[in-house]
Amino acid sequence: MVDRPKVVVVGAGFGGVQVARSLLGAPVDVTIIDRQNYTTFQPLLYQVATSGLPAADVAYPVRGMFPRQDNVRFRYGTVVGVDWDARLVQLDGQEPLAFDHLVLAAGAGARWFGVPGAAEWAFPLYTLDEASHLRNHIVQQFEAAEVVPERIDDGVLTFVVVGGGPTGVETAGALSELVTKVFRSDYPDLDVARARVVLVEAQDSVLTALHPKSQAAAVQGLEERGVELRLGESVAEVSRSSVKLSGGEVLPAHTVVWCAGVSPNPLAETLGLPTGRGGRVTVSPDLSVVDRPGAWAIGDVAAVPDKDGMPLPQVAPVAMQSGRHVGRQIARLVTGRGTQRFRYKDKGTMATIGRRDAVADLPGGLHLTGTIGWLSWLALHLLYLSGVRNRVSVLLNWGWAYVTWDRPRLILRPQRR
Amino acid sequence: MVDRPKVVVVGAGFGGVQVARSLLGAPVDVTIIDRQNYTTFQPLLYQVATSGLPAADVAYPVRGMFPRQDNVRFRYGTVVGVDWDARLVQLDGQEPLAFDHLVLAAGAGARWFGVPGAAEWAFPLYTLDEASHLRNHIVQQFEAAEVVPERIDDGVLTFVVVGGGPTGVETAGALSELVTKVFRSDYPDLDVARARVVLVEAQDSVLTALHPKSQAAAVQGLEERGVELRLGESVAEVSRSSVKLSGGEVLPAHTVVWCAGVSPNPLAETLGLPTGRGGRVTVSPDLSVVDRPGAWAIGDVAAVPDKDGMPLPQVAPVAMQSGRHVGRQIARLVTGRGTQRFRYKDKGTMATIGRRDAVADLPGGLHLTGTIGWLSWLALHLLYLSGVRNRVSVLLNWGWAYVTWDRPRLILRPQRR
Repeated sequence: MVDRPKVVVVGAGFGGVQVARSLLGAPVDVTIIDRQNYTTFQPLLYQVATSGLPAADVAYPVRGMFPRQDNVRFRYGTVVGVDWDARLVQLDGQEPLAFDHLVLAAGAGARWFGVPGAAEWAFPLYTLDEASHLRNHIVQQFEAAEVVPERIDDGVLTFVVVGGGPTGVETAGALSELVTKVFRSDYPDLDVARARVVLVEAQDSVLTALHPKSQAAAVQGLEERGVELRLGESVAEVSRSSVKLSGGEVLPAHTVVWCAGVSPNPLAETLGLPTGRGGRVTVSPDLSVVDRPGAWAIGDVAAVPDKDGMPLPQVAPVAMQSGRHVGRQIARLVTGRGTQRFRYKDKGTMATIGRRDAVADLPGGLHLTGTIGWLSWLALHLLYLSGVRNRVSVLLNWGWAYVTWDRPRLILRPQRR
Repeated sequence: MVDRPKVVVVGAGFGGVQVARSLLGAPVDVTIIDRQNYTTFQPLLYQVATSGLPAADVAYPVRGMFPRQDNVRFRYGTVVGVDWDARLVQLDGQEPLAFDHLVLAAGAGARWFGVPGAAEWAFPLYTLDEASHLRNHIVQQFEAAEVVPERIDDGVLTFVVVGGGPTGVETAGALSELVTKVFRSDYPDLDVARARVVLVEAQDSVLTALHPKSQAAAVQGLEERGVELRLGESVAEVSRSSVKLSGGEVLPAHTVVWCAGVSPNPLAETLGLPTGRGGRVTVSPDLSVVDRPGAWAIGDVAAVPDKDGMPLPQVAPVAMQSGRHVGRQIARLVTGRGTQRFRYKDKGTMATIGRRDAVADLPGGLHLTGTIGWLSWLALHLLYLSGVRNRVSVLLNWGWAYVTWDRPRLILRPQRR
């Protein structure tokens, strides 16, 4: 058997999976490496955290994703380094893997902005385990308040969401509905009305990447749901039981959800790749890494350029399109063709506020709100979810929750922090 | 408001839930205490362990179980003792709860029979967390073998199931199908045919509580699926990577699933209740605890008597019927009536071997096998599952798995032992 070029993809998220998919039929051997054995549908992690969906609905085993593509393999492991001269990817506790092309698709985690206590006490929301931990924690706060209601004064039922982007807005809206619609009947002896959901955003509106009309609809939707907005404020400090805002206000709060910004996977620097502002890998217009032949970077870990060379936002459509692009470029190279520049197609931005309420900015200047926005949000998320089982299961869970407000509010393997 | 008699139920399993349900409309205040905030459908835990079902499908939040019963409360906590004179249940880190009637429904865990290494290295299968841990572990063994195939010689792909009762048979059958139908295509570079599933049973057949015809059908079904039977053998010792059988055979094996017997919750002895053979609480014919007025014991933790006074097996139907009985007796007492003796209605026993294959002994001497047995097993389990959402979701997952062999084989929060 002739040795075919080896493509190693680090990360099985939106970007990494698309690299592999777009190498269907190409004369290469692809290996996807990930620390988890599943791909995560990150846009719905906030629903796992707020008991809207069970964890298994937003994860799909990587080994089941390429049933008709026999040039893709999966490796469950953690990348710790790269030997660029020998062209080997080094793994924790495993033999290194040889590569001809290396695609860094390692994603991002929370960016703490140096806020004291944030990394220690705030809950990030980038992995499924983080979402499950947060769900456990939220339900435990209500159980704790039930036992000692005085703890409400201490902030046990105050939930502070930091960051007014789509994730922050969706988390705050879903939390508010969870409290008022589900927990109010779960805890009849508790004064659940005293629970607070506070959304902190440094700019003077939420969803600032969207049209002002969408911003206004989101603000209205959140306020209707009882979310307290703290606009033009940022978080100065986080402790186990309180949050201090930049204006000086101190909120007693046992739960701080951090949706304030992303920080590229530190692997970019560990591997010695060139990085620019914010630690994102610097790439050429074709998404190859500058000065590293055979290396590519995509998605949240890379400064994927728009047509003017400016870095695109770290969102799922950029990850997917950049992944597909890099797969195609590798296929071109191994068949003797040259590479092309990446061109991003803006598919719009959307965020759901709650039941029958979402905002969506679509290409062509179309702004949807309310029920129409919500239905388009539902359809799009179902469409992009991996696996038919997961789609049907999510649809079932959404339908069931819509009719009954019943939610899988389980404390599974609580881990004390 | 007049103080109504307080009923405290320790344990939210099959038995405890029935106590509360059968007190619908009774002039009492019921509190169910559990260390988990959900009830577990234990008969399907083996499917969680073998990636057949996601965890959330077999758990239901206790607070959602009594929507139309306002005399039931839930308390998330751990019982550590009882002050019988003051009639207070003592909780870990919480104020004690007063009771007039105390129902111990705390279930059972694994019985290790003093086998060296068993408690340390074998996997029990009585809680949802145990089932999730086992699923993570099983998938991780295949990932480990993929990286270093030589580990197969060391037993990394040998799965020993101890105990030939329904749980052991179901686990062995499901494991075998998982390996041959799912993992064979997941790991194309691995010689998955070298994986072994070994079922060890001290008696000379499996399912010895069932009719010989059912036993023979189960043995045949297991052998057809490649399960190696070690009948008339018991386990002498367990280590991290091997199992020693009573006959002297040593099997290299990194996974030992312990389905060999149950041990009542040690709370029975902690609380100072009278216990008999096997540590089960000694109860009168009406299921009140001997010499402890106001105390009751049901399900796996109690020696629930049949009509001849002999203890019934520790199975779900006994737990449910004894729970319903005790709820009714408490309702009788608080309305000035006397108690009645418990009468068990045998509903039969069943176990599934695999796809379209189960055995069922039904009342009236009816013995079902094969597809008919399997369909009746499916129908019965769906019927007894808590919550409509869970039923529909289980049905969906079973249907999907039936058509595709796709399974939610996720490693969620791996915990190293």
